[in-house]
Amino acid sequence: METWVPVPDGSGFGVQNLPYGVFSRRGELPRVGVAIGERVLDLAELSTAGLLADRRWFASGALNSFMSAGRAVWQATRDRLTVLLTGAAYRDQVEPHLVSLGEVELHLPFAVADYVDFYSSRDHATNVSRIFRPGAEPLPPNWLHLPIGYHGRSGTVVPSGTPIVRPCGQRRGDDGPVFGPTAKLDVEAEVGFVVGVPSALGRPVSTAGFRDHVFGFVLVNDWSARDVQAWEYQPLGPFLGKSFATSVSPWVVPVAALESARTAPPAQVPEPLPYLRCDEPWGLEITLQIELNGHVVSRPPFAGMYWTAPQQLAHATVNGAALRTGDLMASGTVSGPGRHERGSLIELGSDGQEPLVLPDGERRAYLEDGDTVRIQATAAGPDGVPIGFGDVTGTVLPALC
Amino acid sequence: METWVPVPDGSGFGVQNLPYGVFSRRGELPRVGVAIGERVLDLAELSTAGLLADRRWFASGALNSFMSAGRAVWQATRDRLTVLLTGAAYRDQVEPHLVSLGEVELHLPFAVADYVDFYSSRDHATNVSRIFRPGAEPLPPNWLHLPIGYHGRSGTVVPSGTPIVRPCGQRRGDDGPVFGPTAKLDVEAEVGFVVGVPSALGRPVSTAGFRDHVFGFVLVNDWSARDVQAWEYQPLGPFLGKSFATSVSPWVVPVAALESARTAPPAQVPEPLPYLRCDEPWGLEITLQIELNGHVVSRPPFAGMYWTAPQQLAHATVNGAALRTGDLMASGTVSGPGRHERGSLIELGSDGQEPLVLPDGERRAYLEDGDTVRIQATAAGPDGVPIGFGDVTGTVLPALC
Repeated sequence: METWVPVPDGSGFGVQNLPYGVFSRRGELPRVGVAIGERVLDLAELSTAGLLADRRWFASGALNSFMSAGRAVWQATRDRLTVLLTGAAYRDQVEPHLVSLGEVELHLPFAVADYVDFYSSRDHATNVSRIFRPGAEPLPPNWLHLPIGYHGRSGTVVPSGTPIVRPCGQRRGDDGPVFGPTAKLDVEAEVGFVVGVPSALGRPVSTAGFRDHVFGFVLVNDWSARDVQAWEYQPLGPFLGKSFATSVSPWVVPVAALESARTAPPAQVPEPLPYLRCDEPWGLEITLQIELNGHVVSRPPFAGMYWTAPQQLAHATVNGAALRTGDLMASGTVSGPGRHERGSLIELGSDGQEPLVLPDGERRAYLEDGDTVRIQATAAGPDGVPIGFGDVTGTVLPALC
Repeated sequence: METWVPVPDGSGFGVQNLPYGVFSRRGELPRVGVAIGERVLDLAELSTAGLLADRRWFASGALNSFMSAGRAVWQATRDRLTVLLTGAAYRDQVEPHLVSLGEVELHLPFAVADYVDFYSSRDHATNVSRIFRPGAEPLPPNWLHLPIGYHGRSGTVVPSGTPIVRPCGQRRGDDGPVFGPTAKLDVEAEVGFVVGVPSALGRPVSTAGFRDHVFGFVLVNDWSARDVQAWEYQPLGPFLGKSFATSVSPWVVPVAALESARTAPPAQVPEPLPYLRCDEPWGLEITLQIELNGHVVSRPPFAGMYWTAPQQLAHATVNGAALRTGDLMASGTVSGPGRHERGSLIELGSDGQEPLVLPDGERRAYLEDGDTVRIQATAAGPDGVPIGFGDVTGTVLPALC
C-alpha cells in the first residue's frame, strides 16, 4: 500500500499507521489531525471540504468526541483516510489540507478521564521489589494472579514537551523525614491504551470486549520521585511520588494499526482466573527507546509484558467500575531481562549503586536539572513497515522549594 | 438571622447553610439550586428573573462553572441569596422560584475531576492496621508526618441514592485466589472538600491558600470490598476494592457556612514539617451518623480528625500537582475512639469477629443484599443552628457474577 504523500525511509508515520492527534497552527484553534510522513492532515478542514464525515468530531481540541463514536466509525474513518491518501485521484483535493509538522504545535490528544497505571512487567516488578523491599519475595503473592494497578492523577497528564519542574516533598531522613527537592527523579517508559466507548456502571467488560471499547495506544512517561515514593507509599500506594506529571505522546495509534504487531504474550503460569483469559494473543511487538540527553540508554521490549491490555481492561472493570471516554490505562514500566532493556533509571542504575555512564562521560544515577529525556517506540507494522508513536520528551527544570 | 421560608426545627437547611446542588423537575434540564428548609431555590430561574448575576453559572447541570468563578463571586452570591431569603420585601419575587424538595431529582452536584482519598483519622488507621496487618505497629512510620492519601476513581463517584451492585473480584482463598461476589462489602463515612479554583502545574498551594481554592464540603460514602482490597492492595494500594462506587451527598456546603464549626484539631506531635503547618484552626465540629436499614449504628465525630483539610490540600500539591475545578478530596473514614464512633463496618464489627446486632435482631458483619445505608452529618452552625449535608444513601443490589 503506497501513499502519494512523501514518507521518508524509517518514518513511523506511513499510511499503515495514521495516528490521531490534536494540533494547531499559530493563531488557529486546535483541531484533530492524522500524522502522515512529515505532515499532519487537517481532518477538520477535510470534513469542511466534504471529504470526511461529521465535522464535529474533528473541529475539536480533543479526540474524545471522535473516540466515543465507536468502532464502526473508527474503521470507516480509517478506511476513508486510506483511500484519500493512497488514491492518486484525490491528491489535488487532499494535499491543500496537509500541514508540515514543523509548523504546528501538538497538544494533549485527549481529555483524560481516569488514569490507571498497571505494573505488568515481571522484570520491572522483580527489579523494583529487590530495591524497595530487600529480602522480601521478588514478586508480591498476588502478582501472578492479577494485573496490579492503581489510579494516578489524570489532571497532571501532560503532552510531550511539557517541562518537568523537579518536585519537592518529604523523604526519609536519618532522624525523621526531611523536606526538599527530590534527589531521585526518575522516568518510567510505558505504553498505555485509551478508552473510546464508555461502559455502564455495574457491568464488567470482558477481554473480548477490548476492541469495542479501546480506541488506541499512546506512549507514556510516568515521571517518578523515588525517594518521595519510598517514604509515602505504604500502605495506600504511590501518591506524590507520581502525581506531579505524566507525559504522553502527541499521537494515539489506532488499535487497527497494531494488528501486525500482535504476538503471543509470555505463558501465564499459574493459569489466570477465567475472567482474565483471552482468546486472542495480545502481546505487542513494540520496542521502546529511552534517550537521556541524546544518548540511548535503554531499549525496553514491550512484547515480554506479562499482563496484556485486554486483561488489564477486564480486570479494571470486573468489579463493575464504569469506563469513560478518555480513560487512560498504562502498562507500567516496560522492562526486559537485559541490563539495557530496563525502563526506569532506578533499575538501569540499581538505585544509584551502579550509575549510568553516558558516552560523554557524564554519570547519572537519577535525573539532574536540565536533563532531557526522550522516549520513542516502534511497533512492527505490515511488511516490516514501522509504526511510530512520536516522541515523549521532557526537560527537567530546577525545583521551586 | 431569620428567613421568610418555613424551616422546620432541626432542619440542617436554615438560611445559615445555603448549600448548593443540582436538581431537576420532571421534564426539565438539571440546573443549580440552593436548599432552604424543605425546598430548593432555583438559581437559574432567579438569574433569568434578574435577581441574581450571571445565568451561565446556574443554568448548568454541574456546579463547576460557578465553583471556578472564585471566592469573591461565591461570597457575593451567598450575600445576595441571604438578602433575598431574609428580606421580607423580596418574598413575592423569590417565592415563585422555590420548589419542594419532594418534587425534584437531585443529581451529582459537580463533575469530579480527580478524586483523592486520605486516611486522616488516627483511630481508623489504628483499627484497620490491627486487622489488615496484625502484629505490625499500629500506625505506619509515615502516618504522623504526612496525611497519607491515594487517588481513587473519579468516574465512579455517584450521587446519593445510586444503587450499589455488589462487586465481584478476586480474594484470597485457602488454595490461591478465588473469584466471586465480595463477602465483605463495607462503607466508609467521610467528609470531602471540593476544589473550585484551579492551580497551575508546578505551583504548590499553601495551607493559607485553602479558602481561595476550596468551594465547599460534601459527605462521602467510600464503598469498599474488604476481601478484594486485602488481596490486591500490596504494594500499590487499593484499586478494585474501592473503584466500583463512591457516593456523595447531593449538597455542597460552602466553606463560609462552616465558620462556626471550626475548632482546634488534635495536637500534632511530632510537629509537622513547615509546609503542613496551619495558622488557623481547621478542625470541624461535624457529627456523622450511619444508619443501617434504619438503625443508627454509629456517630463518628469529625472534630477528632488528625489531619485537617488545609493540610491535605497543601500536601496534595506540595509536589507541584495542579488542582482542577471539581477535584474531590475526601478525609478518609471518620472514626472516633468509642465503639459506636467508628465509620466503617470492618471496625464496628471487628472484621466479623463481633458482628453488629441490630435492634430488630439481625446480625451484620458486613452488608447483605438489600441492605440500605444512610449517612448524614450535622455541623455546628451559628447559635446552635445545625448545618446539614443531606443524606448519602445507597441500597445493595445482588452481584451479577
